[in-house]
Parts: sequence; C-alpha cells; structure tokens
Amino acid sequence: MIYLDHNATTPPAPAVVAAMLPVLSGLSSGLWANASSQHGPGQEARRALGAMRTTVARVLGCKPAEVVFTSGATEANHLAVRGLLDAAPPERRRVVFSSVEHAGHLRLARALSDGGVQVDFIPVQSDGTLDVSAAGALMGPDVALVSLMAANNETGVLMPVTEVAALAHAAGAPLHVDATQFIGKQPFAFSTCGADAVSLSAHKLQGPKGVGALLLRQGVPFAPQTLGSQERGRRGGTENLAGIVGLAVALELLDDVSAEAARLAGLRDALECGLARALPTMHVWSRGVPRLPGTSYLRFGQLPAEVVLHRLDRLGVAASSGAACSSGGSEPSHVLTAMGVPAAEALAAVRLSLGRTTTAEEVAYLLHTLPPLLEPLLREEMLTAP
Amino acid sequence: MIYLDHNATTPPAPAVVAAMLPVLSGLSSGLWANASSQHGPGQEARRALGAMRTTVARVLGCKPAEVVFTSGATEANHLAVRGLLDAAPPERRRVVFSSVEHAGHLRLARALSDGGVQVDFIPVQSDGTLDVSAAGALMGPDVALVSLMAANNETGVLMPVTEVAALAHAAGAPLHVDATQFIGKQPFAFSTCGADAVSLSAHKLQGPKGVGALLLRQGVPFAPQTLGSQERGRRGGTENLAGIVGLAVALELLDDVSAEAARLAGLRDALECGLARALPTMHVWSRGVPRLPGTSYLRFGQLPAEVVLHRLDRLGVAASSGAACSSGGSEPSHVLTAMGVPAAEALAAVRLSLGRTTTAEEVAYLLHTLPPLLEPLLREEMLTAP
Repeated sequence: MIYLDHNATTPPAPAVVAAMLPVLSGLSSGLWANASSQHGPGQEARRALGAMRTTVARVLGCKPAEVVFTSGATEANHLAVRGLLDAAPPERRRVVFSSVEHAGHLRLARALSDGGVQVDFIPVQSDGTLDVSAAGALMGPDVALVSLMAANNETGVLMPVTEVAALAHAAGAPLHVDATQFIGKQPFAFSTCGADAVSLSAHKLQGPKGVGALLLRQGVPFAPQTLGSQERGRRGGTENLAGIVGLAVALELLDDVSAEAARLAGLRDALECGLARALPTMHVWSRGVPRLPGTSYLRFGQLPAEVVLHRLDRLGVAASSGAACSSGGSEPSHVLTAMGVPAAEALAAVRLSLGRTTTAEEVAYLLHTLPPLLEPLLREEMLTAP
Repeated sequence: MIYLDHNATTPPAPAVVAAMLPVLSGLSSGLWANASSQHGPGQEARRALGAMRTTVARVLGCKPAEVVFTSGATEANHLAVRGLLDAAPPERRRVVFSSVEHAGHLRLARALSDGGVQVDFIPVQSDGTLDVSAAGALMGPDVALVSLMAANNETGVLMPVTEVAALAHAAGAPLHVDATQFIGKQPFAFSTCGADAVSLSAHKLQGPKGVGALLLRQGVPFAPQTLGSQERGRRGGTENLAGIVGLAVALELLDDVSAEAARLAGLRDALECGLARALPTMHVWSRGVPRLPGTSYLRFGQLPAEVVLHRLDRLGVAASSGAACSSGGSEPSHVLTAMGVPAAEALAAVRLSLGRTTTAEEVAYLLHTLPPLLEPLLREEMLTAP
C-alpha cells in the first residue's frame, strides 16, 4: 500500500515503538509504576518522566516547566482555549479564531458561542492565506485570546503566527497556536514563535496516538481544566509514561526537519507537475503560497472525490477527501468554503499528504498509473458538462 | 521487589502488551491508521475499534454505544461531572460528592464551588462507610448530579452505590460512580449497578496508562466537553487504538474476578492477622466493614509512615502512605480526616494493596521480616510516649 494520508496520521517509527515497549511491559525496570509514587519504581518512573520532559523541551525550544503532557492535540487545544479564557480578566470575554481551524476546534468555538462568549472568526483569502488586516481589525481590549493554527490540515497553507502574535499582544491578548500539522514538518522553536500556548500531537510525527502536549509560556495566566496534582497542577491524571516516551523519541527523530522538508517539497512538486501535465483540468489549491512541504490539496475537473479515491484505492493508494475527522460526511470542506470555493468544486477535493515513508518510486508509480484511470472519466465529464 | 501498591497502579499483563504491540507498530496491518479515515487502513482501524468496544461492553455489562473511551479515569470523572452538570435543567445547580472521593476529584468539586455551583459532601462514619442517611438528607429537586466512588482508594471500603442510586433517582438526579478501584476487583455490571455514568481506568487492572472509559447510560442528558466527531460526538480526539486494545484485553483477563478476590482476601487477612499477632499496636482501618479484597490501610502504633515505608523499602517492598497522587505531601489523608482520625494517627497510615502478582510467599516473607524491624521502634515509641 502507498500511504498518502500523512496529515491524518503517520505510521509510528520503529525506534518509537522500540522505546515504548520496555516502559509498557515493565520488563527489567520499574517504568510501569505510577510516577507519583514515592517508592523505588515510582521514583524511577518519575526520573524518566523528567528526562522525557527535558528532551521534549530541548527539541521544541522551550523550558521543561513549559511542557504540559496531554492525551493529544484535541485535548491540548481545548485546554489552551478554556484555560486562557477562564484566566482572562472579566472585561475580556471575546475570543478570536481563524475560520479554517480544525473541525473539532470550530466545534469548541460554537460551544463557547452557545455559552455566551462572543466568538469572531478571522477570514481567509481565496488562496487560503489568512486575512491579516481583518485579523488586526478584530483585535481589541475585550479579547481574551486568539487561536490560530500554524498550518492548515487540508491546504497545508502556513499561517502568519508571528504577525498575529504581535497583533494579539498589542491588544493585550495571548495567542494559542495549534501546531499539530506544523511541528515535524517545519523548523519550530516555542521561545521565538511568538505564541503563548502551542498544541501538538505525537501521532502526526510518527509517534503513538493518545499523547500530545500543550506548551505554555511561563507567567501566562492560565486556569487548569482537568484537575489533579500532575503536570504542576495544570493537567491531572496518572501520566502515560509509555506514550510520553513515544512522543519524546519521535521528536528526537526530527533533527533533519529542513532536509526532510526539502525532500518532501521536491516529491510533492514532482507529483503536482506530473499530474498537471497529464491531466490539464487538475487544479491545486493554494499552490502559489507558502505551504507545508508534503501537502497537496487538489481536484481533477469536478470529478467527485469519492470517484478519485476509489480509483486511488484500486491502485493501492490511501488518500482522503480532507480531514479524517470529517471525511465521512458529504458536506464540502469548511476550509474550501471559507476560501470561497463553490460546493461542486469543493466536493471534488482530494488531499494527498506525503510523509517520511513516501518515496520517489511511489510518486513515479502514481504518475504512471493514475492519469490513465482518470483521463476517460475527465473526458466523459467534459462531454456531459452543461 | 515485592510490589504492594496495586491501588496506585498495576504492572501491565504480558498478554496486554502483546496485544498492543502490533497496533502500535503497524506491522502487517493498518491498525496504526486513523480510525476516522475512509481508506482501507482506516477502515481496518475502525473495525478493530468497534470490536474492542463490543468486548469492553460485554465484560462490563453495558451496550457498546454506552462506552466512551477517554485518556483515563481522571478525564472520565471530569467528563461525567461536567457533562451531567452542563446538561442538567437550570433549576438543578447543586452537586453532591462524597467527602472521600479521590483527591483530584475533590479538586474538581472545589473548582465547581469556586465557579458558583453549590457543592455538598456526604460524610463518612468512623469506620469509613458512607453515611447513607446524610446522603438522603442532601438529595433534593435542586441536585444536578451525585458523584460517589464505588470503593475508596485508601481504605478499600465499598460504597453503597445501589442505595445512593435509588436516593439520587428518587430526587430526579443522575448518579456518577468512579469505579476506578472497584472494576477488576469485584464483579461489576453497568446494566444493574444503578449508576448513570461510571468511570474506569485501564492501568488499575493490568492495562496500560493513558486510557480509560466513561460508561454513559443511553438517554441520560449529557453535554460533551472535549468536542469532536469521535465517540459519537461525546469525546473528540483521534482514538488511541493501541491503548483501547490494551484496555479491552485487560478487561477480558478478568473472567476470574470472584476467585481472584477470594484469593486476595485470604492473603490480605493472613497479612493483617500475622502482623497483628506480632505487633499488637498495629491498627487496621475499616477492618470490620466490606472492603476491597486486597487493600489494607493500617498503622503501627503512631510510627510515622515514612519510617515504616523506609523499613519496607529496605526489605524490597514497595508500598505507600495513601493515594499516589498525594503521597508526596505531609498532610494527613483527607479520607482518614473525614473518618475523624486524629492527625498523629493519620500520619502513621501505610497502605498495603495486594494484586494479581501478589503471592503467598511474598506475604510470608513480609510476616517474617517486617515485625523484627518495627518491634524495637514500637518499643522505643511506647517508652517515650507521654
């Protein structure tokens, strides 16, 4: 199988699984113990937890005390938004999200709105980039926080985090950044990114599912949500040490981010150019703007996504029509809708997301086999078009 | 090492780790995929997720649709309380907790109180049992929910879940039960236990850390907290399939609960009787009331817990002074305080919690080696007593 859905999840790296196994099984160590216990095995688990926190902090450019381990990015996103909102002064009851946040995050925005919090959305332009001047106009002394993804999960478009951080800070508001799709694909350092809180997930960067982190700048007012003594009182619950080891090892494997990004951008560009040459009605969204290196969001004429995905499946290629979390539905992507794309075109959207396991041979295979399968369908579509 | 801290966490069963490994590593399967993805690997992961849900439901006596997978019991407890409270009618703004809930759960109670929700606590009697008549007096038409643990994590005392369920339901309020310490140690069926929501954690029953579940009775009004499309919209976030497999396999290994409970009760009673014979100033809390079979909460005269734990450590025995989550502190246990135990006695509390790995040889070793170490200390204590 050729896996071109790395934005949905990634296959765990063998080194990650190998590092988790002794923690899970407790063979020849006390690492399975409760890191809050005072006895020998508990102390061994606690030391390992501290070492993992240091590793994560080193790779992500933050202080160990700024790392809050969570069960993943969705929890981290909720924790950041609710934690910053609940700690904001009473005169700040408005929150600002981008209109192209992850579907689960937009559900949170709606829930806040239903609960009486004013929620404003920063629009995007037709190329998928954020409307920075609109963002500026939405800032004000009543803003409790701004929440912006670092890179869109569908188009791959990179968001102007530093600029929006400056706008938010000028208005006295903290910035939360969902960097789930960004970290591991582009160089990143929390200390210089401008954000006050950053979410990430292990399973998007060849780590395990069920673990992630919220990076939380020291001194930023914050109200914990899941209460307990762990994580300095910022996130309760017995620590998932095996998962945390998996996250730390996955991050350690990222020391070649720039080289890997260049390799993936080369493969992605070859894929897009080759497909465009063979199938001239192919369209790539956000092709001309800075994007994640391995993400290609495209349509073939107006062939419905499920038709294209079915042909890809016949070729042994796994891809998706957009975010996994909403790919079961028949609604057009909210990201494309926000970009002003008509529904008929949006329903043709196919996302090919390349990753560390993707090879030049796989791209060549796809370029060789997909156009002959789609070409007759596209010709038929053109004949029957109104 | 002799591990007598099974109430803090348990060593994962080898069969649990063996079942998780192929899911984590993705060797020869698509089980590492995102269960929300529509392609082949995603469907394979989704089928496995459904099979695990069916297994969990079968073992716990509920419907598959009543299982909501979470990152553990702490999240499940928060989800239950906030989810039931947010869905309660506006005239029901009071919540009732027992006074001996887990420390993290009592933090949630305090946070609710700080947020303007009236929180009442059901007291316990001096033997650690719940004061059922006081519980009855706290019920009323303004109660949004009642939250009660099934068994106390320190004393092991079993709580009258069915009776309190009847009281709560008579007042029109749902009952949440934290069964983290109960499930795996006593027979359990959600369908007949009376509770409307039940929390559990895998790592207390030889499963992995970082995964648990909330069982949620169909039709009970409930407001999701972490939003997303997963778990029928009741808990967002990409599913931790490896952890869920670990939880399901750990539950499947429980088919001998009654036999194991009898074995552990025998070992625990032998331990308590032997220690009492050798050290007459030893006191066991809640000895005369129904308790978890493997839990023994005791003191040796008024020897400070850290002195006893240090001697146990010299013998290669890992135990604790109470809940792991608060065992780093120097405060007396809130459970013993609620039972009316003086601070000097409470600070002498040592919890020995036996589990599946505990053997008769370990108990015999402890009975042979611990009394000679403690006897001179107890004699000295008696001489210096006022």
